[in-house]
Amino acid sequence: MMQSTALRSFHIESYAMQHTRLDTLPCPIARALDRVGEWWNILILRDAFRGLTRFDQFQKSLGIAPNILSRRLRGLVEAGLLEKIRYNQRPPRDEYVLTPVGRDFQPVLWAMLAWGNRHFMPFGQEVALVDPATGLHADPVMVDGKSGKRLDQAVLRPIPRPTLDDARRRQS
Amino acid sequence: MMQSTALRSFHIESYAMQHTRLDTLPCPIARALDRVGEWWNILILRDAFRGLTRFDQFQKSLGIAPNILSRRLRGLVEAGLLEKIRYNQRPPRDEYVLTPVGRDFQPVLWAMLAWGNRHFMPFGQEVALVDPATGLHADPVMVDGKSGKRLDQAVLRPIPRPTLDDARRRQS
Repeated sequence: MMQSTALRSFHIESYAMQHTRLDTLPCPIARALDRVGEWWNILILRDAFRGLTRFDQFQKSLGIAPNILSRRLRGLVEAGLLEKIRYNQRPPRDEYVLTPVGRDFQPVLWAMLAWGNRHFMPFGQEVALVDPATGLHADPVMVDGKSGKRLDQAVLRPIPRPTLDDARRRQS
Repeated sequence: MMQSTALRSFHIESYAMQHTRLDTLPCPIARALDRVGEWWNILILRDAFRGLTRFDQFQKSLGIAPNILSRRLRGLVEAGLLEKIRYNQRPPRDEYVLTPVGRDFQPVLWAMLAWGNRHFMPFGQEVALVDPATGLHADPVMVDGKSGKRLDQAVLRPIPRPTLDDARRRQS
């Protein structure tokens, strides 16, 4: 137990000498950003949710330089959001598919979609969220999963840092 | 009507010579990112939702260089997410408060919070979303505002570009 704490402090200190590392801050928003922080990454994830998997598909969709795309895809694989799968041996060809952690990013995109549609599409919506069961446009709204209540008034609140015992109990 | 279309094309072309501009793409996610695309901006918004308004408060919270913070705050004001308000004349002192468009970004932060809490807080949650009415922790979940159904299966779908007449009808 002492060892884990020491290890963690070591990481924080060793990063402090470099530029700011978000992945060691105690805030889940900062850590989430550390995984996708750059907007190309978020657009790559958007495209992955649209079903794109291949380098040339992403490139065509994003109009991005190959070296940048290649670096971004590698970063998303390293962050655990995409998995690189070889679908052809000769010639070697890979595709990139969302991992479970990557798929779980979807509500962030939906929230961005709703915000963008509401404020920055002066000529009207050009992308909609659709319920595939009904084909109807959906209006993404955040509620509390337990009470079903809309979260309009909810606030972020730091909670006391749990002891490692607490954390273990919570995770088990 | 012709004039508006021409104006829009002009903007797209004039930006094309520079680096990629997200604010002219037809995707609301891209346009949303254009407003907040850089992760400092998202952390500044996070802090604004926590009630921070002053330069030194943001600086203390973020550990960010003053010149970068100052550029970011200016950018968020220009993008219409924060408003700069002079609260003291001598010496001149400004504070930054969320505009309605900025406040509407909140679901994006909640979605990031939930994703970060779920996957990147190995020692347990350190920030929670709280319903101020009950004091209980909320579990942010995205539903369709109309049907109340969870959006687990929802998909993004491009919709046919409306004519300007359609767009006008939609907005009126």
